[in-house]
Parts: sequence; structure tokens; C-alpha cells
Amino acid sequence: MAPTVTLESRFALAEEIAEEAGALALDYFLRRRDLQVEIKTSMQDVVSIADRDVETLIRQRLEQAFPQDGILGEEHGYRTGTSGYTWVVDPIDGTSAFVHGLPNWCVSIALLAEGEPVVGVIRVPCERETFAAMKGGGATLNGEKLQLDPSRTLQNSLTGIGGNHHVPPAVIGTAISNLLSAGGNYIRTGSGAQMLAWVAAGRLAGYFEPYMHAWDCLAGYCLISEAGGHYLPFPVEGDAVLNGSPVLAAGPGAYEDLLALSGVAGTET
Amino acid sequence: MAPTVTLESRFALAEEIAEEAGALALDYFLRRRDLQVEIKTSMQDVVSIADRDVETLIRQRLEQAFPQDGILGEEHGYRTGTSGYTWVVDPIDGTSAFVHGLPNWCVSIALLAEGEPVVGVIRVPCERETFAAMKGGGATLNGEKLQLDPSRTLQNSLTGIGGNHHVPPAVIGTAISNLLSAGGNYIRTGSGAQMLAWVAAGRLAGYFEPYMHAWDCLAGYCLISEAGGHYLPFPVEGDAVLNGSPVLAAGPGAYEDLLALSGVAGTET
Repeated sequence: MAPTVTLESRFALAEEIAEEAGALALDYFLRRRDLQVEIKTSMQDVVSIADRDVETLIRQRLEQAFPQDGILGEEHGYRTGTSGYTWVVDPIDGTSAFVHGLPNWCVSIALLAEGEPVVGVIRVPCERETFAAMKGGGATLNGEKLQLDPSRTLQNSLTGIGGNHHVPPAVIGTAISNLLSAGGNYIRTGSGAQMLAWVAAGRLAGYFEPYMHAWDCLAGYCLISEAGGHYLPFPVEGDAVLNGSPVLAAGPGAYEDLLALSGVAGTET
Repeated sequence: MAPTVTLESRFALAEEIAEEAGALALDYFLRRRDLQVEIKTSMQDVVSIADRDVETLIRQRLEQAFPQDGILGEEHGYRTGTSGYTWVVDPIDGTSAFVHGLPNWCVSIALLAEGEPVVGVIRVPCERETFAAMKGGGATLNGEKLQLDPSRTLQNSLTGIGGNHHVPPAVIGTAISNLLSAGGNYIRTGSGAQMLAWVAAGRLAGYFEPYMHAWDCLAGYCLISEAGGHYLPFPVEGDAVLNGSPVLAAGPGAYEDLLALSGVAGTET
């Protein structure tokens, strides 16, 4: 792997770009009544010019600075690189929330190296919050260090549960009723990446969604790991990085319990 | 019923108090690490000095201005009045979100007259948003008129589904899987009053929670009705106002569908 200094410069750039991309996305958000919204696989899976333009901005900035890095983005696909680093980008996570005027959407930028997310930056423009982490460097929220409290459990905290049209409805309903039966309660803001950032910040005990993509979860995973939490590994080798997989992450006091009630077999990282 | 001028002066006062109460609550929120949190019926049902102090502020201001009005608040109980008006107050709706650091909590102030919510003000301090409505006067968000779009459905929008420990877990799980099966998707921010305000603002197609109290829903109901939506009447006569009931409200394009999938029998208002 490349020396730490190159990781640090990538981390600094990711923070800078996330802020810039967030500002562009916010500008679209404030003018969203004029946005043409296109349907992808269903009316719950939409995209707009905002997603595409924000991803273009992020890709251009990354390519200028690190032309040998790979880039995978939700809207403009996958280009492999030669440096050993691959950026994984969701320009607007929570597009449905975005187009309907909910403040719960974010820009998510992750960097993979040796199969692991080593940088994670999530910018939530409406809340003016930036969650940022680099492997070995800790996680922060607007510059303040994040450290998970092991006393937080499914019972004394809230837990994010995500659902989408890739998953049979009964699987989501059962996950939620299992959580409620265990004495917990669920949250779904409309953005999985935001909820993963909230896990890193200790606002949620954990997060589970039976099917997500790499661009939805890898930045959050880096944040959670650096804040002292655990996550279910996401397959990123070769083209596997393009596929959906279960996503589960939590603080140390909730991980095993959330894994047990999710019904997903897995080991923690 | 008292003349309109007395309703207008109450509405103006409610807006003023909601802002003031929101500022006090926000001050507690920013210092929440020092808050002593008490458990009410379960670890998911909590209260703090913030809830009590904010309600005290609201009650004192209302009593000063309108000593003959009744007041019902979540934390300090029910005092009947003689004017025909009854205030229904939730000082912090979403206390669990509040204590865990989520931005999704609000101050909710409703006014009942002749069995109907005639004023509804919801202040969301973290978003700097005030939703306000008076019967016959329309609904606004930060002063901008709200008018629901009848083309919004469960399928092309997001829907709020609330759950708490008063309701069997399977009832919530089934409501959510029914919504997903119908082509919708669920949101739960952690504050029912906020989600009802979001229905009035067209951010959510509708909201359903099988069991809520009057202080959780009446302000939102007034907002939704004034924005052109419909709601399931909440029993408010005599001591019935103290009991929990199903809460369901939606824009005109989603109300019947949400009612059908909720399994609740009811007529719209």
C-alpha cells in the first residue's frame, strides 16, 4: 500500500470535495421544484440532473488530483485504476428524500485500499454536518472526535432499519417487528449513508439494511470502524463491488444483538 | 364559539410561544450530555428536565394571556377551562430523538374549540422551521403558504409510519410491509408531530401510527386540514382527550389508500 502521506492527501481532498459537492447539491435542492425527476427501477427509485451533475463534479476533481485511482459512482459507473486506490461515490444518497424536500440526504465519498474502506466522508448539507474518517486517524463530526459508548444498546437507543424495492416487504417488516420485540425502536430518515454516519456519532445504536450498494455504505463503514464500532464486511473484490449486499453496522454494545435479529449470517470487522 | 379576533390573537400567541419554547429546548439540546434522562414506561419512553421546563414555560405564557382556557400538556397534565378553548401541548415531541442527538424533535402547540383543532403550530428548532395553521386561515411553513398536491400518492412519495411500545410489534411490521407491498416506502424520523407537519408540507404522502396521544397529533391535524389534506378524527370530548388512539392523515391523493392498508376503520375529516 502507498505511504500514509498519500492517504492523508486523499483524505484532505475528499473532505474538500464533499463540502463543494454538498453546496452544489444544496443549490439544486433549494430549486427542486424545477427539477425533472426520472424513474429508474420504480417510482421509489429516482434520479435527477442533480445526482448526475454532483457526481460529475466529484469525478472531475478526483481525476484531476489522482488520475491513476479507480472510481465507482452510483450514476456514472466504474472505471478501474492502477494506483491500488478506488473511490466509491454516492453524489446524493437519499435521492427520494431529496426530491420530496426532506432534509435527509447527503454526499458520500469513500476510498478503498486493499479491500477496505480507508477514508469515509459524509456531508449532510441541510444540517451543515460533515462526518469524516481516515483509517487509523479516528472519526470526527465537524472536527469533533467521535468515540462510541459501549453502554449503548438496541434497548436504550434508536436503530436505523432501511428498506427498498430490492428486498421482499416481509423481510423489512419482520426486521422491524423483531427490533420492536427486542425493546428497540426503528428510524428511517430516507438516507442510509446518513444513518450510518449517525451510528458513528452514537445517535443510533446500529443500522441494518438487507440490500445496499457499495456507494451507500463504505464511507459510513469507515466512520463507524474509526469511532470504535463494527460492521459486516461488504464484498468489494473485482466486480463484486457492483453488487448489492446486506449492510449491518453498530456500536460495540449493539453489534451482536443486531446481527442476531437481522437473520444475516456474518462476522464482524 | 368566540369571535374570530380571539382566535387570531391565540394563533399569534401560539406562534410566538412556539419559537420561544423551541429556543429554550434547543439550549437544552446543545447541552444534552449533562441532562439526567428518566425512564417513563420503558427505555424507549423517556423524559428529562428539558421537557418539563419547556412545558412550564408554555403553560405560564398561555395562562397569563388566556387564564380561562383549558390546558393539556404531556408532562404536567390536564386543567379544564371555561372559555371553550383548550390548549394541547407537547413541549418536546420526539424526546428519544432529542436525548440521542437526532435533530428530529419539535415543539407542538394545538388549540381545540368545539372538538376540533383550530390552531396548530409546530416548531422544529434544528431545522429552523415553523409550521403554522389556523382554521380557515390556511397553513404556512416559515410564512410560505402550503397547499397539498392531489397527484401525490403512496407510490410516488414517502410515507411516515410510527411505532411505539403501546402497539404490538407485528402490527407495525405489517403496516410497513403492507406499505412496501403497495409500492410505497416508510419514514420514521423519531417525531410523529414533525412527520405530520411534513405531510402538511407535501414531503410525505401521509402518516400513520396505530396509537398516539392528543398532544402528538392535534397541531399536525390542523396543519394538514388547512393544507388541503384529510385526517382520521381523534376523540377529544371530556376525558377521552387523555387516551391514545390511532392517528392517520394524508394528502387527498393518498388518504383512502393509507386508510385501507392501515386496517383502521374510520371516516375522514
